Amino acid sequence: MSHQSGTFPAPCGQKACQVLKDRNICIQVLVMIQHLQRRVDEHLKQLPTTRQRLHLPKQKQAQSTHEQEALLDHLIRQMVNFLKSRATGGLEQQVSLLSLECRGNVRSAQRAQSSRQPGQLVLQWSDIEPAFVSHDLSNRGSEICVLYHSSFQDYNAYQGDKYQEDKNTLGFINLGTSENKLCIDLITERLGQSDMNCIEDVLLQYPDWRGQPFLREEVARFLTYYCKAPAQLDPENVVVLNGCCSVFSALAMVLCDPGEAFLVPTPFYGGFAFSSHLYAKVELLPVHLESEITEANTHPFQLTVDKLEHTLLQARFMDKKVRGLVLTNPQNPLGDVYSRESLKEYLEFAKRNDLHVIIDEIYMLSVFDESITFHSVLSMERLPDPNRTHVIWGTSKDFGISGFRFGALYTHSKEVASAVGSFGYLHSISGITQHKLCQLLRDREWIDTIYLPTNHFRLQKAHAYITNTLQSLRIPFLCRGSGLYIWINLKKYLNPCTFEEERLLHRRFLDNKLMLSCGKAYMCKEPGWFRLVFADRPLRLKLAILRFCEVLEEQKQDWKEKQLADAMKE
Amino acid sequence: MSHQSGTFPAPCGQKACQVLKDRNICIQVLVMIQHLQRRVDEHLKQLPTTRQRLHLPKQKQAQSTHEQEALLDHLIRQMVNFLKSRATGGLEQQVSLLSLECRGNVRSAQRAQSSRQPGQLVLQWSDIEPAFVSHDLSNRGSEICVLYHSSFQDYNAYQGDKYQEDKNTLGFINLGTSENKLCIDLITERLGQSDMNCIEDVLLQYPDWRGQPFLREEVARFLTYYCKAPAQLDPENVVVLNGCCSVFSALAMVLCDPGEAFLVPTPFYGGFAFSSHLYAKVELLPVHLESEITEANTHPFQLTVDKLEHTLLQARFMDKKVRGLVLTNPQNPLGDVYSRESLKEYLEFAKRNDLHVIIDEIYMLSVFDESITFHSVLSMERLPDPNRTHVIWGTSKDFGISGFRFGALYTHSKEVASAVGSFGYLHSISGITQHKLCQLLRDREWIDTIYLPTNHFRLQKAHAYITNTLQSLRIPFLCRGSGLYIWINLKKYLNPCTFEEERLLHRRFLDNKLMLSCGKAYMCKEPGWFRLVFADRPLRLKLAILRFCEVLEEQKQDWKEKQLADAMKE
Repeated sequence: MSHQSGTFPAPCGQKACQVLKDRNICIQVLVMIQHLQRRVDEHLKQLPTTRQRLHLPKQKQAQSTHEQEALLDHLIRQMVNFLKSRATGGLEQQVSLLSLECRGNVRSAQRAQSSRQPGQLVLQWSDIEPAFVSHDLSNRGSEICVLYHSSFQDYNAYQGDKYQEDKNTLGFINLGTSENKLCIDLITERLGQSDMNCIEDVLLQYPDWRGQPFLREEVARFLTYYCKAPAQLDPENVVVLNGCCSVFSALAMVLCDPGEAFLVPTPFYGGFAFSSHLYAKVELLPVHLESEITEANTHPFQLTVDKLEHTLLQARFMDKKVRGLVLTNPQNPLGDVYSRESLKEYLEFAKRNDLHVIIDEIYMLSVFDESITFHSVLSMERLPDPNRTHVIWGTSKDFGISGFRFGALYTHSKEVASAVGSFGYLHSISGITQHKLCQLLRDREWIDTIYLPTNHFRLQKAHAYITNTLQSLRIPFLCRGSGLYIWINLKKYLNPCTFEEERLLHRRFLDNKLMLSCGKAYMCKEPGWFRLVFADRPLRLKLAILRFCEVLEEQKQDWKEKQLADAMKE
Repeated sequence: MSHQSGTFPAPCGQKACQVLKDRNICIQVLVMIQHLQRRVDEHLKQLPTTRQRLHLPKQKQAQSTHEQEALLDHLIRQMVNFLKSRATGGLEQQVSLLSLECRGNVRSAQRAQSSRQPGQLVLQWSDIEPAFVSHDLSNRGSEICVLYHSSFQDYNAYQGDKYQEDKNTLGFINLGTSENKLCIDLITERLGQSDMNCIEDVLLQYPDWRGQPFLREEVARFLTYYCKAPAQLDPENVVVLNGCCSVFSALAMVLCDPGEAFLVPTPFYGGFAFSSHLYAKVELLPVHLESEITEANTHPFQLTVDKLEHTLLQARFMDKKVRGLVLTNPQNPLGDVYSRESLKEYLEFAKRNDLHVIIDEIYMLSVFDESITFHSVLSMERLPDPNRTHVIWGTSKDFGISGFRFGALYTHSKEVASAVGSFGYLHSISGITQHKLCQLLRDREWIDTIYLPTNHFRLQKAHAYITNTLQSLRIPFLCRGSGLYIWINLKKYLNPCTFEEERLLHRRFLDNKLMLSCGKAYMCKEPGWFRLVFADRPLRLKLAILRFCEVLEEQKQDWKEKQLADAMKE
């Protein structure tokens, strides 16, 4: 297999370990990266020639940019292989990781070659360098450190310096992490009731690793009811682990071999990338969606079977083994809710191509616009390929209790349920938490008459507040009626419109103690998009918007000053 | 690298996947195993010749059996490689897994060649066959299923059919899993107090992935006090994950590259094998200890630096990269508590050889014999290599709350703490559980004046009850004053004394609804040893002993009948 993920787990020899410990490694790797950069430049120039050499038919040469990118990816992989063949064993891991990191930049570079900064890759390297030079860690350990650091840097800064009304008014406000903080009062009150505090022997001892039977039974009943399943779901097909990312990681482990891939409509939830990489070494192949409305794209970022077919074809062309399709419904970060017809089409596409479908329905009860109907795949009378359709759900979003670390799998395949169940040994949740979750999920009356109506009402209000503000600022956004976030377009604040400028704007928000998520974290192919979480209390939301406006104002001000300075130079 | 673990993560081609799905696979693999068997036989015969060819000095040829075994291991690996080179890609994983499974049998075969049954390996294969033929899982997924199934089969049977005084008197009594069920009354009462039920916002939201700061602070204070640390331990060096096996798995991930190894004095806790294999693909190299008392072995199963040096040398001879030494203190399953001098020697050995030391002190407060003093490595004034000494502790054993899924790491290395902290994303515990743990650990008065004295008193009583019974049955055992278990020798009930007979006796206990752990699960090199957990309530313990005696009586009866039948044949 040609791609680099497959090389991560290869054992490295003693020599490589020695090399890693050598302080000179930085210089060596830098040299290699410069070489890689030069090769990227060369290939960018040679692209048309290369494609002719690959015997692509004439009409393909005029195709959309994302095909070009895929080809470029392929070429980069070739280069990584070339580097690997020259480098001592251990280095290949760092180089391939870095090349993953760089792909977004290469893409933007391709679209805006004039704006590409030669030092960019080196800059990224220098950002993460300290984690590399390790005396105590293995190569893999160093790699994980880098990956974690680059994925969770901002989140960790927030954890250490949270905004608090009474204690820390200068701390971070987090509209970047998707959490529902609107109904903590209701949840706290419910969790405080006496039925929650049972402490039985069975809760204190080693559990059934698939999840306690009483909780799996309750989850089966709950999903039967809220997903409108045509028949009672089977508790034996439920697996409970500590969070939906653990479920996703376990699915990647048991459905794929290392280096195999899933298709993922993109932009997509960034947590999947870390979860599929840390252990499973499964590649997520983006099915790029576009904001522009065209004949094939009746709404922004529309997912069509054509696009799925197209990416699958490309993947096969590149000799990549695709094992599944990952869907999120309602979608994150777009907020789209798939119609029953679309859903059926996607599932049939998967069935035709022997693909598993992992469908994450973690926002299923967070559809707050009453005119929209959510359709769970579990509601379908006849699933195209039931044994290969796997549903993930948890309480983090719909009940605003991400701290409970609860994720559930429902699959019709007993084999997959049993295989994922094995992971409970390292991913189980405490018995007392399982008890509380069971009590919560079984209280149908409270959920239907108190919790859900209140939650939806508050989501509507917060959504309206943010969308009104965005309208007044003339910031385009996707107006959907589901999820906890809005996908907004800040393109007009970027000049030039590149991922580097997106990164700088993102940094500016952080400097003003406001966390937002930028499009690149979702592998979005168009720079300028951000995800803004609105499910926060009015006071905090208001203050966040204040900080948000301040940054945009500063950004505009800087422009003007720059323009003035440029004009004066001329 | 020559050994098979390193090959697990290698991506397998399309062809291998097809082969796996082919129903004919069973036949093909069986043929290979028969071939492997033949080769084992051949090599057993050729062993002296082979060793001469390897130019071992004369005196080495007369060395103890475990050296022979190591050599045999090496030869088996060579055979696996030979099989791999012939087999289509995907099969190598199954073959190597199977060969791991078979090693114990090969060893016993070496000692008791006359008793070796040719169908033995095939029998094991047929036990696990159903999990192999999968249509929904990847090769890796199938492999994990097999590994899990073979490790947790009995445990899962117990989960589905537990003995209950009022409801299920014919269910399994579990003296196999190390749990302390003696103080559930005290723990339940303490957990029921009002300070436990706090529900703050911070507990309901996404956490600091290293563990909530308040809990890490409490763990640092707790360990400072109970480990008698010379200076206050630093909460920044604490990481909290969902169970000690998660901590061990994470350490294996960040200290080793795939295929590298840890030394482990053996017999050792079997959970480590699953935890180091599932994700990290780290090999555990047994440092075999022997029951016989000799000049070098002043007490049974004594760990000496000589034995460590010897195994390390062997490993290097076989080109194996050893990254660390794993110790458990108090030892599981032996119950040994290391003296300060021994501990220092082991740490200095590690330092001399550039090895990390992972020391699992999970039974540190379960030393119930007052004449024994436990020494934590954290109590040492001057650790030989502080940045490479990593301590694991949790509440599962000492507080009898394994259902809480809590494990903590303390390491002096900020790098290692940070790297292991990354794993919190997929291995964290719920906020409300973290709060309860914090309240429990901070209640020093309750722990010191109520919990620990009562727990130790009850452990003493249960231990005395079991040891008296064993003495009356004339069953040899190690009489230690720590842990929740006794290491007993049932050799005299095996005829012949092989691992196969051990397995059959173990099965007989299970058939009589009694779970014990057999020595093979701890990689013990001598057949006939079992671990018996005594930390259970008197009534259940009494009933368990009844079942235990029944089985041994049956076993004796069967012998007599067999002897009679043999005599009549003659």
